[in-house]
Amino acid sequence: MAGPARALAQILFVVLIAIALRAAAQRLILKITTRAGERGELRSKSPSVPGSAAARRNPRATALGSVLSNAASVTIFGIATAIILGELGVNLAPVLASAGVLGIAIGFGAQNLVQDFLAGIFMLLEDQYGVGDVIVVGNISGTVEGVSLRLTRIRDVSGVVWHVRNGTIQQAGNECQGWARTVIDYPVSIGRDIPQVRELMLATAIEMWQEPEWHGVILEEPQVWGVQAVSADEVLIRLTARTVPLRQWEVARALRQRLKIALDVPADERSNVHIAGAAAAAS
Amino acid sequence: MAGPARALAQILFVVLIAIALRAAAQRLILKITTRAGERGELRSKSPSVPGSAAARRNPRATALGSVLSNAASVTIFGIATAIILGELGVNLAPVLASAGVLGIAIGFGAQNLVQDFLAGIFMLLEDQYGVGDVIVVGNISGTVEGVSLRLTRIRDVSGVVWHVRNGTIQQAGNECQGWARTVIDYPVSIGRDIPQVRELMLATAIEMWQEPEWHGVILEEPQVWGVQAVSADEVLIRLTARTVPLRQWEVARALRQRLKIALDVPADERSNVHIAGAAAAAS
Amino acid sequence: MAGPARALAQILFVVLIAIALRAAAQRLILKITTRAGERGELRSKSPSVPGSAAARRNPRATALGSVLSNAASVTIFGIATAIILGELGVNLAPVLASAGVLGIAIGFGAQNLVQDFLAGIFMLLEDQYGVGDVIVVGNISGTVEGVSLRLTRIRDVSGVVWHVRNGTIQQAGNECQGWARTVIDYPVSIGRDIPQVRELMLATAIEMWQEPEWHGVILEEPQVWGVQAVSADEVLIRLTARTVPLRQWEVARALRQRLKIALDVPADERSNVHIAGAAAAAS
Amino acid sequence: MAGPARALAQILFVVLIAIALRAAAQRLILKITTRAGERGELRSKSPSVPGSAAARRNPRATALGSVLSNAASVTIFGIATAIILGELGVNLAPVLASAGVLGIAIGFGAQNLVQDFLAGIFMLLEDQYGVGDVIVVGNISGTVEGVSLRLTRIRDVSGVVWHVRNGTIQQAGNECQGWARTVIDYPVSIGRDIPQVRELMLATAIEMWQEPEWHGVILEEPQVWGVQAVSADEVLIRLTARTVPLRQWEVARALRQRLKIALDVPADERSNVHIAGAAAAAS
Amino acid sequence: MAGPARALAQILFVVLIAIALRAAAQRLILKITTRAGERGELRSKSPSVPGSAAARRNPRATALGSVLSNAASVTIFGIATAIILGELGVNLAPVLASAGVLGIAIGFGAQNLVQDFLAGIFMLLEDQYGVGDVIVVGNISGTVEGVSLRLTRIRDVSGVVWHVRNGTIQQAGNECQGWARTVIDYPVSIGRDIPQVRELMLATAIEMWQEPEWHGVILEEPQVWGVQAVSADEVLIRLTARTVPLRQWEVARALRQRLKIALDVPADERSNVHIAGAAAAAS
Amino acid sequence: MAGPARALAQILFVVLIAIALRAAAQRLILKITTRAGERGELRSKSPSVPGSAAARRNPRATALGSVLSNAASVTIFGIATAIILGELGVNLAPVLASAGVLGIAIGFGAQNLVQDFLAGIFMLLEDQYGVGDVIVVGNISGTVEGVSLRLTRIRDVSGVVWHVRNGTIQQAGNECQGWARTVIDYPVSIGRDIPQVRELMLATAIEMWQEPEWHGVILEEPQVWGVQAVSADEVLIRLTARTVPLRQWEVARALRQRLKIALDVPADERSNVHIAGAAAAAS
Amino acid sequence: MAGPARALAQILFVVLIAIALRAAAQRLILKITTRAGERGELRSKSPSVPGSAAARRNPRATALGSVLSNAASVTIFGIATAIILGELGVNLAPVLASAGVLGIAIGFGAQNLVQDFLAGIFMLLEDQYGVGDVIVVGNISGTVEGVSLRLTRIRDVSGVVWHVRNGTIQQAGNECQGWARTVIDYPVSIGRDIPQVRELMLATAIEMWQEPEWHGVILEEPQVWGVQAVSADEVLIRLTARTVPLRQWEVARALRQRLKIALDVPADERSNVHIAGAAAAAS
Repeated sequence: MAGPARALAQILFVVLIAIALRAAAQRLILKITTRAGERGELRSKSPSVPGSAAARRNPRATALGSVLSNAASVTIFGIATAIILGELGVNLAPVLASAGVLGIAIGFGAQNLVQDFLAGIFMLLEDQYGVGDVIVVGNISGTVEGVSLRLTRIRDVSGVVWHVRNGTIQQAGNECQGWARTVIDYPVSIGRDIPQVRELMLATAIEMWQEPEWHGVILEEPQVWGVQAVSADEVLIRLTARTVPLRQWEVARALRQRLKIALDVPADERSNVHIAGAAAAAS
Repeated sequence: MAGPARALAQILFVVLIAIALRAAAQRLILKITTRAGERGELRSKSPSVPGSAAARRNPRATALGSVLSNAASVTIFGIATAIILGELGVNLAPVLASAGVLGIAIGFGAQNLVQDFLAGIFMLLEDQYGVGDVIVVGNISGTVEGVSLRLTRIRDVSGVVWHVRNGTIQQAGNECQGWARTVIDYPVSIGRDIPQVRELMLATAIEMWQEPEWHGVILEEPQVWGVQAVSADEVLIRLTARTVPLRQWEVARALRQRLKIALDVPADERSNVHIAGAAAAAS
Repeated sequence: MAGPARALAQILFVVLIAIALRAAAQRLILKITTRAGERGELRSKSPSVPGSAAARRNPRATALGSVLSNAASVTIFGIATAIILGELGVNLAPVLASAGVLGIAIGFGAQNLVQDFLAGIFMLLEDQYGVGDVIVVGNISGTVEGVSLRLTRIRDVSGVVWHVRNGTIQQAGNECQGWARTVIDYPVSIGRDIPQVRELMLATAIEMWQEPEWHGVILEEPQVWGVQAVSADEVLIRLTARTVPLRQWEVARALRQRLKIALDVPADERSNVHIAGAAAAAS
Repeated sequence: MAGPARALAQILFVVLIAIALRAAAQRLILKITTRAGERGELRSKSPSVPGSAAARRNPRATALGSVLSNAASVTIFGIATAIILGELGVNLAPVLASAGVLGIAIGFGAQNLVQDFLAGIFMLLEDQYGVGDVIVVGNISGTVEGVSLRLTRIRDVSGVVWHVRNGTIQQAGNECQGWARTVIDYPVSIGRDIPQVRELMLATAIEMWQEPEWHGVILEEPQVWGVQAVSADEVLIRLTARTVPLRQWEVARALRQRLKIALDVPADERSNVHIAGAAAAAS
Repeated sequence: MAGPARALAQILFVVLIAIALRAAAQRLILKITTRAGERGELRSKSPSVPGSAAARRNPRATALGSVLSNAASVTIFGIATAIILGELGVNLAPVLASAGVLGIAIGFGAQNLVQDFLAGIFMLLEDQYGVGDVIVVGNISGTVEGVSLRLTRIRDVSGVVWHVRNGTIQQAGNECQGWARTVIDYPVSIGRDIPQVRELMLATAIEMWQEPEWHGVILEEPQVWGVQAVSADEVLIRLTARTVPLRQWEVARALRQRLKIALDVPADERSNVHIAGAAAAAS
Repeated sequence: MAGPARALAQILFVVLIAIALRAAAQRLILKITTRAGERGELRSKSPSVPGSAAARRNPRATALGSVLSNAASVTIFGIATAIILGELGVNLAPVLASAGVLGIAIGFGAQNLVQDFLAGIFMLLEDQYGVGDVIVVGNISGTVEGVSLRLTRIRDVSGVVWHVRNGTIQQAGNECQGWARTVIDYPVSIGRDIPQVRELMLATAIEMWQEPEWHGVILEEPQVWGVQAVSADEVLIRLTARTVPLRQWEVARALRQRLKIALDVPADERSNVHIAGAAAAAS
Repeated sequence: MAGPARALAQILFVVLIAIALRAAAQRLILKITTRAGERGELRSKSPSVPGSAAARRNPRATALGSVLSNAASVTIFGIATAIILGELGVNLAPVLASAGVLGIAIGFGAQNLVQDFLAGIFMLLEDQYGVGDVIVVGNISGTVEGVSLRLTRIRDVSGVVWHVRNGTIQQAGNECQGWARTVIDYPVSIGRDIPQVRELMLATAIEMWQEPEWHGVILEEPQVWGVQAVSADEVLIRLTARTVPLRQWEVARALRQRLKIALDVPADERSNVHIAGAAAAAS
C-alpha cells in the first residue's frame, strides 16, 4: 500500500505545483501586458494623436495576454501530465522521442513563424507603432491598418494593402512621433546670385509660416540651411521647416510652388540667364 | 497473470486516450477552419467583390481542415502504436533512433516545405488574399488564379502563370480591398504658370468625375496635391483620385490623356515656351 | 526454450509488419502518382497543347513512383533489420550512433539535394510545367527540354541549354497556359494629337486581327488601353491583344511594324513636328 | 533514517552553493556594469559633449545590470530546484526532455532576439554611441533618441523615428567623437586656371576661418588638398576643414556658398569661357 | 566457455555481413558509374562533338567510382570494427561521443565541401557538361578545361582560368548541345522604311547562308523576326540564324558587318535622313 | 572505509590533472601570444612605420592572452568540479541537461559573437593590421583607431568613427605595407596626338619626381603605361608612380594638377581642337 | 587480481592501437602532401613561371602536413585517453557532456573558421594558385603575396594588401596559366568603311607582332574577329592576340595606341565625317 500511496502523494504534489506555477505565470503576463497598455495610454495623451492610442493598444495587449497565458497553460499542464503518466508507470520514452524528432523537424521550418511572433511581442512591448501611424518598412510606406502578433497590415498611398510579416522588419520608421521636418533641396541655375536667392527663399517661407492657415502646421520659423550641393549646371539650396506630423508633405508641396513663383525671374532677364547658361550663342 | 493483465489494461488505457485526443483535435480544427470560413463569408458581403469570397474560401478551408486532421490522426495514432509496441516488449530504440536520424537528415532539406505550408495556413487564417484578387508579390503583379497550402498561382498582365511558393512571400500587397487611389505625377515644363496649370488640372479631373460614365468609378472629387518635385527642366504636379478597386489604372490612363490635351498650349505660344526652355536662339 | 521461441515469434511478427507496411506504402505511392498522371492527361486535352501532356507526364510520374517506392522499401526493411538484429542480441548502439553522426555530418551538406528532390516531387504533383512549355525561371527564359526530380533542363532562344536545380526555383512562370497577351507601350512624340493617334492604333490593330492569317492567332479584338505614361519628350500609349500561347511575341513584332508605318507622319509634316520638338529654330 | 538525513544534507548543500554562486554572479555583474558606467563618465568629461554622458549611460548600465542579475538568478535557482527535485525522487527526465525540445524549437526562432540582446550588451560595454550622438547605421543617419538592449531609436533629419534592432547593425558610424572634417570636392570648369583657383579657394576658406563667428567651429586652418579628379568637362578640387563635431555640414554649406561667389568669373569673362567650353560657335 | 564462443560467433557473423555489404556496395557503384560512362559514350556519337565524350567522361566516372567505393569500405568496416570492439568489452561510449562532437563541430564547417562533392556527383550522373564544352556559370563564360568532383575549371576568352566550386553552381548553361542560334537586334534609324530594311536584311543573311563557306555553319535559312522594339530614335529589328554550336558568335560578327554595309544609305540620302533625325536645321 | 578513501583518491587525482592541464594551457597560450608579439616587433623595424608596431601590438596580445587563459581556466576547473561533484554522489544529469539546452538556445544567437572573437584572434595572430594603419573594409576606408578582439574602430576621412565587427570582415585591405602606387587614368581629348601627349606626361611626372620635395616620396621613376581605354570622345592614358605608403593620394593630386597644366593647349590651338571635337562648324 | 590485470591488458591494447593508428595517419598525410608537392614541382617546369613553383609550394605543403598530423595526433591520443580513463573507473559522462555542449556552442561560431581551413587545404591539393600568380577573387585582382591555410594575401595594382579568407572564395581566376589573350573592342565611328578599317587594324596588329620586341610576347598572329556590336553612333570591332601570361595588358595598351594612330583619318577627311556624324550643318 505504501507504493500507490506515495505515487498518489507525488501526483497531488505535482498537480499543486503546476496550478501554482500557472497562477504565477498568469499574474506575470497580466502585469506585463497591463503595463504595456498603460504606457500606450500615457502616450495617447500627447496632443498630436489624441484619443487613438488607447483604442489601438488594447486589442493587441489583450491578444498578447491571451496568447501568452494559453501558451503557459499548455506548457505547464503538458509537463505535469507527462510527469504523472510517468508516475503511473507508462513508459514515456517513445512519446518524448517522437515529440523530439517532430519538434526538430518542424522547428526548422517554423523558425520564421516563431521569429514573427517574437518580433510582434517585442514590437507591442516597445510600442514601436500602432494603428493609424504612418510608417516606413523596407520599401513600403503607408498607414498602419492593423497589427497582429504575426504581421502588420499597411495601406500605401495607392490604396494597396500590404501584409508584412513582423519578423522581416529590420528597421521600422515611424513618421508620427512628435514632429516632422520638411527638407527641400531647391535647384537653382548656376548663374543666379546665391545670397539674393537665399533671402528670397527665406522671405517666401516665413511669409507662408505667418499665414493663419499654416501657422498651426509649421511649428517654427522655417530656415534656409544653405548650399547643399554645387554641380556644373545648378546649385541645390536647402530649406527646412518643422511641421506637425503627417503634414510635412503638404507643406513641402505648397512651399515648392511658392518658391517656384518667387524665384522665377522676369521673362526678359530670364532669357539672358538661360542663354548664358546654355552657352550657345549665334550672331 | 498479473503482468499480461496489467499490460492489457495499459494498452486499453492508451488507446482510449488516443481516441479522445484525436476527437478533441478534430473538433478544434473544425472550429478554426469554420471560423476562418465564416470570416471569409462576412467579407464576401462587401459590395466590391460580390459573391466570390464564399466560393473562393471554402476549398482552401476544407483543404486545410483535411490536411490538419490527417496530420493529427497520424501523429496521435503513431505515438499510441509506439507506446503499445513498447508495452508488448518490442525494443523500440532502433526504430526511434533511425527515425530521428532520418527526420533530422530530411528535416534540414524539408524546412522550405514546412515553411511554405505554415505560411499557407496562416495566409488562409488571416485571409490575406483569395482567388480573383489582384496582388503584388515580389516583382510579380497579377490576378490570383489559385491558392493552395504550398503555393499561390498568379496570372500577370501578359498571361504568364506564376507559381509562387507561399514561404517566399515576405510582403503581399492586395489591390482589391475597399478602394484604390490613382496617383499621377504629371510633368509640366519649367516655363509654365503653376497656379494656372493646377486650376486646369483640377478642372479637367472634376469634369471627368462628373461624367456619368466615371461617376461610379471615381469615388470622391479628385484632388490636386501640388508640386511634387522641381528639377532643372520640369515640375511634377501630383493629382489623385480615389477609385473603385482595380479601376485605378483605367482612370489614370483616361486622366493622363485629358490632362495632356488640356495642358497643351496653342502652337504659337508653345514655340515661344520651348525656345526659352531649350535656350537656343539664333538670329 | 521459451527465450529463443519468443525471439523467433517476435522476429516473425516484425517481418510481417514490415511486409504489410511496405505493401501499404507501395499502394499509396501508386495512387498518388497515378492521380498526378491522370491530372496531366486531363490537362493534355486542352486544345492549345494537344497530345503532348500524356507523353510528357508519364516518364516523370514513373520516375517519381520508382524513387518513392525504393525509398520506402529501404527505410522499412532497414528498420526491420535493425529490430531483428537487436532481437538476436547484437548491440546496435554503435551502428546507430555512427549512422547518426554520419547522417548529421552529411545532412548539413545534403540539404540542397533534399530540397531539390522535394521541390521536384511537388512540382510534379502540382503540374507546374512539362516538357515543351516555355517558362521563365529567375533570369532564364526558354523551352523546357527535360524535367527530372532534381533539375529542369531549359533551352533558351540562343540555343543554350540551362540546367536549373529545382530547389532554387522560387517563382516559375509558365507562358503556355490557355492564352497570352501582347502588351505594347508605343512611344509617340509629345507633339502628336493623342485621340487621333489612338484611333489610328486601334484601326491598325483591328485590321490586322481581321486578316485570316492572324484571326486564329489573336483571340479577341485588340484594345487600346490609353496613355500609360507621359514624359517630357514622349507619350507611351498601351495597346493589348490576347493571343494563342507562344505567339504573343510574333504578334507584337508584326503589330509594332504596322504601328510604325501607320503612325509615321508625312515627311513635310514630320520635319515641322521634329523641329518644334527639338526646339531649335534658326531664322 | 540515514537515507532522508543524507538527502536533507545534500539539499542544504545544494541550496548553499546556489546562494553563494548567485552572490558571486551579482558581484561580477555589478563590477562590470559599474566599470562601464565609469568609462562613460570619464568620456563625458570631454569638452565636446559636456555633461551628457553620465546622464545617458546610467539608465542603460542599470538596465543591463538588472537584466543580467535576473538572468543569473533564474538560471542558478532553476538548476538548484531541478537538483533538489531529483533528490526528492521526482523523475525529472520528462521535464528536461520537454524543456529540451521546447528550447530547441523556440531557440531556432529566437536566435535573432538573442543576437539583438548580445549585440546590445556589447555595444553598452564598448560605449559605441549614446543618446544624443549622431550616428550612421546602414542607410539611416540621425540622432540617437534612445538605446535599449534590443534596439536603438534614431530620429533622422526628416523627423522619422527609426527603430533599428541592435543585432542587424554590422557597422555603426559615430559622428560625435572629438572632431569632424568637412570635405568639399568643388567642380571647376575645365577651362579655368587651376593654381589661381586653388589660391582663391584657400583664401576664401581661411578668411572664413578667421571670422570670429567661425573660429571656434573650424578647429584648424582649412587646407586645399588639390585636384581630386579630372573629367572631360570639369576638374574637382578638394578643400577640407576640421570642425567641431556636428557642425561639419553647416561649415560645408557656408563654404560652398562663399566658394561659389569667389569663383564666379565676371560676366564678360564668363561668357568667353563658356562659349569655348561648349565649343559651339557660329559666325 | 559459452561466453567467448558466442562472442566469437557473433564477431564472425559481423565480419561476414560487413564483407557481403561491401561487395554489394561495390557492385552497385560499379553499375552506376558504368551506366553514366555509357551514357556519355552514347552522347559522344553525336556529330557535333565527335570522339571527345568518351575521352572526357572516363576519368570522372573512374574518379567517382573510386571515391564512392573507398567511402563505402571505410563506412562499413568502421562500423564493423566498432561492433566487434563492443563485443570484446571495450567501452565505446567515449569514442562515439567524441566522434559525435567532432563530427558536428566539423560538419557545420564542412557542409560546403559536402555540397560541392554531392553537386559534382550529380553533375557527372546527369552529364551536364564535360571537358571541351563552352559553358556559362554565374558571370563566367568559357571552355571547360577540367571537371573534378569538387570543382570545375573554366578558361574564359581572356585566358583566365577560373576554379568554380560545383556546389555554388545554381544554373549551368551549356552552349554545345546540338545547335545554337545567333540573335541580332540590329538598330535602324527611326526615319528608315521598315519593310524595305527587313527585305534588305533577309536578302543579306540568305546570301551569306548560300555561300559555301557558311552553308555548313548556318543550319537553316536565316529569318527576320521583325520589330523587336521601338524607341524615340531607333527601331531594333531582330534577325536570327541557327548555327552549329560554338560558331554562333562568328556568324553574328560576319552578319553584323554585312548588315552594316547593306543598310548604309548612300551619302547624299544619308545626310538628309540624319538632318531630319537630329532635327537641327539652319538656313 | 574503502569507498570514501577511493573517492578521495580519485578527487585528488582529478584535481592534480586539472592543475597540470591548466599549467600546460597557460604555457601554450603564453608561447603563442609572445610569438605573435615578437612578429609584430620584427615588423615594427621596417622603416615605413617606425616604432609604432611594438606599441600597437602589445595591448592586443596581452588582451588575447588574458582572455584565452581565463577561458582555459574556467573550462578546466568547471569540468573538474563536475567530475568531483559526480564522485560525491550529486546527480549531475539535470545540471548538464539544463546547461545543454541553455547552451544550444543561446549558442544559436551567440554564433555571431563567437565568430567575431575567433576572427579577432586570427587577425591578431596573422597581424593583418594595427592601430595607425589605413585600411579598407567593405565600403569603409580610414585609419584604424583601435582593435579589440570583437571589433575594429576606424576613423574615416570625414572624422566619422566606425565600429566594425571583426566577424563581418571578409576582405581587409591594408594600405600601409611597404609601398603604394598612384594610378592615374588621365582623360585626353580624342583629337590629340597620343605619342606627344605621352611624352609630355612622362616628362611632367619625371620632373616632379626629381624635385627634392617629392624625391623621398616617389620611390621610383614614374611610368606611362599607355592607352588604357578608347571611347568615342576621349582616350584614357595611364600613368603610375610608386610612392611611400599613405602619400599616394597626395602625389596623385599634385600630378593631376601638373598634367592638367602641361596638357592644356594654348588658347588659339585649343579652340580649333574643340570645334573639331564637337564637330559643329558653321561658316 | 583478474580485474586489474584485465584492465591493464585493455589499456595496453588501446595504447597500441592508438600508436598504430597515428603512425598510419602520419604516413597517409605525408603521402598526400608529398604528392601535392610533386605536382607543384612538375608544374613548375612549365616555361612560363620558371623555378618558382617549387619554392612557393613547399612551405604550404609543409604547413599542411604539420597541421594535419598535429590534428590527427590530438584526436587519436585524446580518444585513447578517454577510453583509458573510462577503464580506470573515472566517470566521463560529465566531461563528455560538457565538451559536447561547448563543442556545439563554439561549433556554430567556428564554422567559418573550419570552412576557411578546409577550403585552404583543398586549394593546396588542387594547386589553384601560388605565390607570385596574378589572380582575380571577387572584386579584387592582384598578385598573390602569400597563402596560408586560412587566408590568401593579395597585393593589387595600387599597392593595397588584401587579406581574403579562403572560405569566402567561390570563384578564383588565375591569370598565369599557359597563355593569356588580349581582347580589344575598338570603337569606330558609324560613318567609317568597315572592311577597310578591319584591314587597317589587322595590318597594324601584325606589324606590331613582327617587331622583335613583341614577337616573344605575342604568341600567335593577331586576329580581327569582326563587328562585336553596332549602336546608333559607333561600331565596336574586336581584335585579339594571344600573349605570354601577364603581358596581355601591356600588349593591349600598345595595340590601342597603334590602332588609334592608324585609324585616325586625315584632318580634312575627318571634319567631313564628323559633321555628317553629328548631323549638324549650317550654311
